[in-house]
Amino acid sequence: MRIIRNTTPFGDGFRMPAEYEPHEGCIMIFPERADSWQYGGYAARKAFVQVAEAIGESERVTVCAGAAQYDNARAMLPAHIRVVEMSGNDAWARDYAPTFVKNDTGVIRGIDWGFNAWGGLYDGLYFPWDKDNQMARKLCDLLEKDVYDRRDFILEGGSIHVDGEGTCMVTESCLLSRGRNPELSKQEIEEILRNYLNVSVILWLPWGIYNDETNGHVDNICAFTAPGEVVLAWTEDKEDTQYAMSKACLDYLEQAVDARGRRLRIHKLPLPKPVTVTKEECGGLDACGDQPARVPGERLAASYVNYYIANKSVVMPGFGDPADREAREILQKLFPDRKIVQIYTRDILIGGGNIHCITQQIPL
Amino acid sequence: MRIIRNTTPFGDGFRMPAEYEPHEGCIMIFPERADSWQYGGYAARKAFVQVAEAIGESERVTVCAGAAQYDNARAMLPAHIRVVEMSGNDAWARDYAPTFVKNDTGVIRGIDWGFNAWGGLYDGLYFPWDKDNQMARKLCDLLEKDVYDRRDFILEGGSIHVDGEGTCMVTESCLLSRGRNPELSKQEIEEILRNYLNVSVILWLPWGIYNDETNGHVDNICAFTAPGEVVLAWTEDKEDTQYAMSKACLDYLEQAVDARGRRLRIHKLPLPKPVTVTKEECGGLDACGDQPARVPGERLAASYVNYYIANKSVVMPGFGDPADREAREILQKLFPDRKIVQIYTRDILIGGGNIHCITQQIPL
Repeated sequence: MRIIRNTTPFGDGFRMPAEYEPHEGCIMIFPERADSWQYGGYAARKAFVQVAEAIGESERVTVCAGAAQYDNARAMLPAHIRVVEMSGNDAWARDYAPTFVKNDTGVIRGIDWGFNAWGGLYDGLYFPWDKDNQMARKLCDLLEKDVYDRRDFILEGGSIHVDGEGTCMVTESCLLSRGRNPELSKQEIEEILRNYLNVSVILWLPWGIYNDETNGHVDNICAFTAPGEVVLAWTEDKEDTQYAMSKACLDYLEQAVDARGRRLRIHKLPLPKPVTVTKEECGGLDACGDQPARVPGERLAASYVNYYIANKSVVMPGFGDPADREAREILQKLFPDRKIVQIYTRDILIGGGNIHCITQQIPL
Repeated sequence: MRIIRNTTPFGDGFRMPAEYEPHEGCIMIFPERADSWQYGGYAARKAFVQVAEAIGESERVTVCAGAAQYDNARAMLPAHIRVVEMSGNDAWARDYAPTFVKNDTGVIRGIDWGFNAWGGLYDGLYFPWDKDNQMARKLCDLLEKDVYDRRDFILEGGSIHVDGEGTCMVTESCLLSRGRNPELSKQEIEEILRNYLNVSVILWLPWGIYNDETNGHVDNICAFTAPGEVVLAWTEDKEDTQYAMSKACLDYLEQAVDARGRRLRIHKLPLPKPVTVTKEECGGLDACGDQPARVPGERLAASYVNYYIANKSVVMPGFGDPADREAREILQKLFPDRKIVQIYTRDILIGGGNIHCITQQIPL
């Protein structure tokens, strides 16, 4: 693995493909952190396995497991899914596995962004995050891909979406947060995204999902379903704080123009009714430092937008909510050639994310 | 990775190729154990890097590094050598990386033997050895090879050599040692080797190298250089305990017949003068449990037989001894199509082995 420091993907003719372009495979990380996942990850592991199996039907899945969980991961996952040992601080492949870029001859390279647990010492979610931050490079080494070093720039994979045709979508609440790159202006951040993702237009949604601990990752509120087309997490409940947040995003998107000069087709994807964590669930979580990891009644950032587009399926969350079915039907219409697999992911949601957050595609 | 328990390589048409057959690559493990390697492995790592670089000239080399040494391994090794994170108890790829077998259509599978640190609680060299024992399976998973589970049978890769044509060579001192499989008879051990390596003749040398802590691995005293041809570690000094040991092996080999009915051509490979560990070197080693790892004056099991046959080279030890040159010239004659690379490996020898012990080939 060559570590590339003096050139950029844009300069080298590499671009980040959209998630709906073909994948070589998918990376996941096996959960075990006891202040993120109930009962030492016991319940979350079952949900992760379901996600891995669903994706594994049409992609090569590699699951990274810490030394203590390697044997268990191997026992729980089917034989065609690869398990490799890798230490981490938690299990968010989307956020700190590499962002992959590709050139016209099919060469794949990774980008190693800096990771500081969604806000570092300012408003990050745990400490330390050193092993998470090593993962992108370790994965590129494992996969024998050269890697661009941008550890000086803090970015999570869940905070960016691209359409594969020159447009990137982010949120202001996240990318301009004080805990990431406070020394950089919006223009300087745009410049880095342009050079590393090889895009020409950055769309800046104002917000993500209410109470999303990532400072509002775009991947929980809005995603491209095709070039020029997005789904937006939506509620009709004007009393809900989320309404104003989704409405502000809608207003922004309705006036936006993408890199090809297109207006966007915006599909509203309903949100489930507000999901809160129970006292029992909080009781299954270790303390995070000297604070409780969650408090009973705390609202979780549940959203159907947090799906993963696999080669032949879309693997999406379910919450046991009446909107589960409507959301599934909307995605089926938007992805007519893919099977929609809905997995009940409350045990992932309690950890602070969902299916998109725990997966990272490797383009083909 | 499929774990195979109900069939054997012999039954499935797989055999262990000889080391001089073509390789896909080589596995090594980065040293860090402070009671094996001086100064926390500082000196040994430099020697390991030299070995990896030499092999890397004609093979894909994968180096496994523990989490604490990953970044350092990546920094010390050239970009074309792959570094993957893997936890272990020490760094002996020969002994607990998989033994690979191959069928006629080129499919490769691994064998996961049991490992108990060369003798377990009876006369093993450290405790615990759990992470070493996991490595074969982890490596098969990483390399996407199915694996035969024989963890119930204790065997190290350094205790077997095959000619690729049905003959296996071992030592009685090791395979019949009380710390490995004391419940099995010699005939039962032969049966397992026949079924797993797919050989028909087992040659049982009586001894290995004097004071070799492995109970005398064959790979330190005798090795096939071609079908029907071996090198044997040899001294002319009849006062040396090693003389009787090498002579007993010579006597055995002179009457032996291999699987193809051939008498063996035996090439004596001189040993260096006895190598002993110095007080300074002992001072660089942590204690092993509550005992010193080595004591000044302790004899080390130095032997030129402990070389690795790479695709286009033979990477062999040097000890700064007058015999270095003679041994190199003998190997050059025996491997006329390969470059002989001699590396000064005292810092590996102090750890208890040499180049063959720290490498494991993956057949092509």
